[in-house]
Amino acid sequence: MRLAQGVVELPARPAILGQAAVGGKTESEGPLGQKFAEVFPHSEMDETCWEMAETRLQQAALRHAMAAAGCEPASLDLHLGGDLLNQCSASNFTMRDSAWPFAGLYSACATFAQSLAMGALMMAGGGLSRVSACASSHFCAAEKQFRYPLEYGGQPSPTAQRTATAAGAVVLGAADDTPRAGISHVIFGRVTDLGVTDANEMGAAMAPAAWDTIRRFLEATHTAPQAYDCILTGDLGGIGSALLLELAQTEGQMELSGIHRDGGLLLYNAGAQDVGMGGSGAGCSAAVLCADILPRLHSGELKNVLFIGTGALLSAASPLQGESIPAVAHGVKLVSSR
Amino acid sequence: MRLAQGVVELPARPAILGQAAVGGKTESEGPLGQKFAEVFPHSEMDETCWEMAETRLQQAALRHAMAAAGCEPASLDLHLGGDLLNQCSASNFTMRDSAWPFAGLYSACATFAQSLAMGALMMAGGGLSRVSACASSHFCAAEKQFRYPLEYGGQPSPTAQRTATAAGAVVLGAADDTPRAGISHVIFGRVTDLGVTDANEMGAAMAPAAWDTIRRFLEATHTAPQAYDCILTGDLGGIGSALLLELAQTEGQMELSGIHRDGGLLLYNAGAQDVGMGGSGAGCSAAVLCADILPRLHSGELKNVLFIGTGALLSAASPLQGESIPAVAHGVKLVSSR
Repeated sequence: MRLAQGVVELPARPAILGQAAVGGKTESEGPLGQKFAEVFPHSEMDETCWEMAETRLQQAALRHAMAAAGCEPASLDLHLGGDLLNQCSASNFTMRDSAWPFAGLYSACATFAQSLAMGALMMAGGGLSRVSACASSHFCAAEKQFRYPLEYGGQPSPTAQRTATAAGAVVLGAADDTPRAGISHVIFGRVTDLGVTDANEMGAAMAPAAWDTIRRFLEATHTAPQAYDCILTGDLGGIGSALLLELAQTEGQMELSGIHRDGGLLLYNAGAQDVGMGGSGAGCSAAVLCADILPRLHSGELKNVLFIGTGALLSAASPLQGESIPAVAHGVKLVSSR
Repeated sequence: MRLAQGVVELPARPAILGQAAVGGKTESEGPLGQKFAEVFPHSEMDETCWEMAETRLQQAALRHAMAAAGCEPASLDLHLGGDLLNQCSASNFTMRDSAWPFAGLYSACATFAQSLAMGALMMAGGGLSRVSACASSHFCAAEKQFRYPLEYGGQPSPTAQRTATAAGAVVLGAADDTPRAGISHVIFGRVTDLGVTDANEMGAAMAPAAWDTIRRFLEATHTAPQAYDCILTGDLGGIGSALLLELAQTEGQMELSGIHRDGGLLLYNAGAQDVGMGGSGAGCSAAVLCADILPRLHSGELKNVLFIGTGALLSAASPLQGESIPAVAHGVKLVSSR
């Protein structure tokens, strides 16, 4: 079950019983807009602060994922949740009105991948049989917290990515005869920091972490990139994706183009929408996975996908204190049983 | 292996291969001061900001725990870390210079209990064989982030607890013939919010969460409080501890006094030290467990301890936005194999 490089193969592959993505107006105007379970046309979402609006996103994603899985809260053993807000606020408040156990996670935009990896591993021991997971981000909440309040009218840097107003949620359960997506392998990332200090260059900070995890995974499983229908990172954006392809070529003599996709580039119409280098935020890769990739695995259109969540582990304060940006990338291999 | 109420019993009890606690000057003057692996007499710890000083605490605790366990970084499959700083900053930067995989957790002062519970459950499936865990807090970093910068000279509320400058770390591994402490059961908490809105009353906000988890655990395992040498909460402080005893009496018809201890009350000399209602912070219960409780389980002086980490899931902003304080309590039952 344990392979090299910290990769774990799961003999009983936990199944994705149901999933859902929700998003804001800008996200609904992107190529995946029609695939959201719910769209929130107003950023406020009837709340009086951005943080509670983000909580609404999580609540909605979780509600729709549970409906898709056909399961009741009482059947869930544990919820894993995380977001970018200080003290993972949106996740905590989402669970305030719930009655099932909750554990909070944090690895920035790698949080959803981390929750899938941890959920699958904890289920492998037989202690938990149903686990839900959710990750979110909100453009306005992130701008306020990490950059400037919107009212300031700050100009985005040309290398910056747009934090997605979105959330994705899944329910994991035991595999049965129903053909659908499941998790066959997990891998946790190592913290990588090559010295990028510009908080508007997060794709560049994360690309080496993504490469480290992809390289370790391919090595441990003795597979080439071509063995996968898709290697989905989330979210490197335009610059980080280009750097990943370059790292794969120069350090691994591997060609990822054609196989590599990035959540930050799939969520928006880069040409028509003003989103800088693409999407980012813990909700971006979660929403892309839940809206687009998982349904295509359920249907058998995709057979296997290596999903690599990438997180920039800076705080709002750390770049101002002169620190460079550590990054991490966690991964799961998703397979279709159809 | 799965009992009622979400409690999981672990047939192969993961062992605590080594542990260490480190602390600041005030903590070293408390009753556990002699039991720290390292004491930092200056709050700055040769760093230029409090956040990086807290990173030093984690690095030291982890280094000492690994030395106590006699293990090299290369033998570790995963590190689980968390703290109170925005974006779990101290944990992320601790792992920047490391070479083993890392997953970040957040449940405020329940983080260390959560890391033990998750580590043990993930090991149960056989996918991971050695897991390290660490949690920390730093008085100056927490005051700056949650209350006022120290230079402001703010007066603490009489009901407030003092955030400990401390960290605790463990290495978990497979049980062998060496008699020592191990983990026999885990339980994850549900988010409880009875409407406390005062961020200086966190003990009161957390007591109902602690009671919910203790009640569920005792019910699932068909045990009375008297079956344990100690039920250790962390950290309810003076007010929260009194409320927990009252909840147990009125809602559970149970007497916890004599069996219940609280990390926030064990770390300091409440009479002689100016620490308000006792200690708090993710490092407080971690340090008390690692400095005092685990060594006494290793030696066989204590046979079984129910460790209930309690976290107040507010953010620095949420009370100012009118929100009450959600709380959670995660638990592990620790047993001595001696």
